[in-house]
Amino acid sequence: MLKLYDYSRSGNCYKIRLLLNQLEIVYQRIPIDILQGESRTPEFLAMSPVGKTPVLEISPGQYLTESNAIIYYLAGGSDFLPTDRWERAQVMQWLFFEQYSHEPNIATVRFWISILQQAEQRREAIAQKQQLGYAALEVMEQHLTKHDYFVGDRYSIADIALYAYTHVAEEGNFDLSKFPAILGWCNRTTRQPKHITISAT
Amino acid sequence: MLKLYDYSRSGNCYKIRLLLNQLEIVYQRIPIDILQGESRTPEFLAMSPVGKTPVLEISPGQYLTESNAIIYYLAGGSDFLPTDRWERAQVMQWLFFEQYSHEPNIATVRFWISILQQAEQRREAIAQKQQLGYAALEVMEQHLTKHDYFVGDRYSIADIALYAYTHVAEEGNFDLSKFPAILGWCNRTTRQPKHITISAT
Repeated sequence: MLKLYDYSRSGNCYKIRLLLNQLEIVYQRIPIDILQGESRTPEFLAMSPVGKTPVLEISPGQYLTESNAIIYYLAGGSDFLPTDRWERAQVMQWLFFEQYSHEPNIATVRFWISILQQAEQRREAIAQKQQLGYAALEVMEQHLTKHDYFVGDRYSIADIALYAYTHVAEEGNFDLSKFPAILGWCNRTTRQPKHITISAT
Repeated sequence: MLKLYDYSRSGNCYKIRLLLNQLEIVYQRIPIDILQGESRTPEFLAMSPVGKTPVLEISPGQYLTESNAIIYYLAGGSDFLPTDRWERAQVMQWLFFEQYSHEPNIATVRFWISILQQAEQRREAIAQKQQLGYAALEVMEQHLTKHDYFVGDRYSIADIALYAYTHVAEEGNFDLSKFPAILGWCNRTTRQPKHITISAT
């Protein structure tokens, strides 16, 4: 059985839980409390040299890291990953956009404000990252004004990856009310079969 | 014919040029001077809403962005992208590692020091990013101590993606002499058929 090493409040981990549920794949969830240093132990670093959750254990000793590589792996052969070469390239484009321009800004600010509760100590860095985070939201808004989903006008792992931290962006004090197309897409995403919330156990 | 919108000193653009050369694909190179604001014009933003090079124009009006999505697209069906599901997942893992843990630190420091010449003004940010960059190099060194290449013990787009900014890391004042396995892998990479340097025209 697949094992998921998982920090419950992480959007990166939530991507995997959401897709596994939508694929109806049974797995074992192993909680990792990153705030207690559990992702920095020698045992954890042997699985994930970068010391980050999520980690997917495919078989004993066979580990996959990087949330978007994991959803790419799991979605292979399913409707969540297009087979058409151009559509698949666009999925990849949005997955890299998410990890480069979106997550380091939107997820990080949420982590500092709502998980570490360090809004005051990190005020300057937060302001800088919020500006970059809003730029990423603008790129999404522009796309979603013309499309229902990110690729091929149907729900895919590109939507799963981008939904994970977008729908909780307000926990990083991002004001989503300025982005009606994003809000509409969030609604469509939550109405997908077998959708689960980030806090589902 | 494919068109590549390209900033010559960018490692992200170099990934594409290197792979296109190794695939023996003829293309048109369109220089974009990011220092002169050429990646922020309305025309450029219509192709690449994030305002970044490289952009691959596949056919008129059909644009692909994100360097690692572009090499994934181009490598499809070639020896540079494994077809085995587990090997391909590992390629993806290293591509996301490169964009999340490596490029934002190693490439950014090189850009500040060697391209913008702002070593003094950005001293504090450079120190912070160098620490993270060295952590990424450590992860690579650990892997390359046991393997000749990143995935399946043969050269793939995972090597191309990681080579792009690693081999010029010294332009960001990273000391690569501490990483013998990385230096050996850089040597093996330069000996691949149809290898070109970052400054090849």
